[in-house]
Formats: sequence, structure tokens, C-alpha cells
Amino acid sequence: MSVDIVTLSEKFAKLKTQNEYRTIAQMNNYQFKLIRMNREFIWHAHEDTDETFFVVDGEMEIALRDKTLRLKANDLVVIPKGVEHKPKSIGECRLMLIEPAGTLNTGNAGGRLTDTRGDWI
Amino acid sequence: MSVDIVTLSEKFAKLKTQNEYRTIAQMNNYQFKLIRMNREFIWHAHEDTDETFFVVDGEMEIALRDKTLRLKANDLVVIPKGVEHKPKSIGECRLMLIEPAGTLNTGNAGGRLTDTRGDWI
Repeated sequence: MSVDIVTLSEKFAKLKTQNEYRTIAQMNNYQFKLIRMNREFIWHAHEDTDETFFVVDGEMEIALRDKTLRLKANDLVVIPKGVEHKPKSIGECRLMLIEPAGTLNTGNAGGRLTDTRGDWI
Repeated sequence: MSVDIVTLSEKFAKLKTQNEYRTIAQMNNYQFKLIRMNREFIWHAHEDTDETFFVVDGEMEIALRDKTLRLKANDLVVIPKGVEHKPKSIGECRLMLIEPAGTLNTGNAGGRLTDTRGDWI
């Protein structure tokens, strides 16, 4: 079993397309995914799991039903399961997500933005 | 339920003592912990879980039985369960650990460096 360092800047350099998720590491059944987010996403919730957003570079907002969070580099937030949220980047935001493998990006909302690939880079 | 941003720099500013673990966030049964590490730790393994090291600032080494990893800011590594490792900071290293709640820092080695507090900050 090879145990290797994951350098975020190197992984982001391999991410040629915005708004696509790529998997960079796995801890038990949890995956770490990167995205160069440049969009306003949709309202959704994950009924079965919490989800962690960690901003590596840039800024983003996460709207909740009662307030809007504004995150910058080295901020993280855990969205509890069942809590509706709508992420939106401020320009391009380089983001790391941590969530169980198989978690759908669109949660309970589904629709055309659903992305089930999450290839490893 | 309050959903709040966790700003790593603010949390590190509350960490007055080196080599103490403090919990800053929880995702399902996993906890995010910070440490201002300034020491050479001991050989140990976690028999039941993988463990993630994420370097926020500074540098550290993680010795494995077959090689030594050198991590700098924005590097992460997942140490698989059962794999012996010995972390060592290079001066002070500001580190975020991600692991299941209740994971002992000394794993299967035990001893005087075992720290079961992990208070929230």
C-alpha cells in the first residue's frame, strides 16, 4: 500500500475545467474532492450526511434559509444533514469538499447539475 | 441548529499551548482538530481507522517504516489504518487532523503522551 502526500496546488493544476469535481484522497469511506467552482449552485440538502466545505483559495457564499455564510481561504463549514443550502462562488473559488463516497452534489434536488463522476486525479 | 463558519486563523489564535489538541468542527462522527505541533511524536498506528493530516502552516515529517513524508502548507496525507507512523514537526507546524471522534493520538502505543481531552475551541 502506497501512502503519498497530496499537494493541493498540484491537484488544482490538473483540474482543467471549472465546476467539475475530482477526488484526491479517501479516509475510510469519506472522500476529499476538489472543485474550481465558478457558479451559483442550486438549493439542496443531503438527507443522510453532513458535508464539509473548506475554501483553499478565493471566496464563496453558502446561503442557508435563515442566513448567508461568506467563506474565504482557510475557512471551513460543516453543513449538517438535512439542512438546505445553496453554494455560490465569488468568481472562481478553489474548494475542497469532504463527504462520504457516493454523496450526490445535488443531494435531494437532483436535476441536470447532478455530477456522479468524481474521477480521481 | 446554528451553522457557523470556522476560521482556522481565529481558532489557532485561541490555541495558547503547543502540542495540545483542540476540536473545531464535527462532521457526522468525524472530528476536525487543530494542534500547534512542536515535537517529535512516537511510533504508533490506529488499528480501526484511517487518519488525515492537513498542514495549515509550517512543515512536518511523517516517518513510515519504508519512507519519510515531508509535508508543507496545503499538503494532506491519509495514513491508512494499521500503518505505523511517527509524526515530527519542523519547528512549529500548524496542523489540522481529521479522524473519528474518540481516536487516541497515541493509537496502539499508549503511554504518557496520550491526550484524551480534545476540548472544543
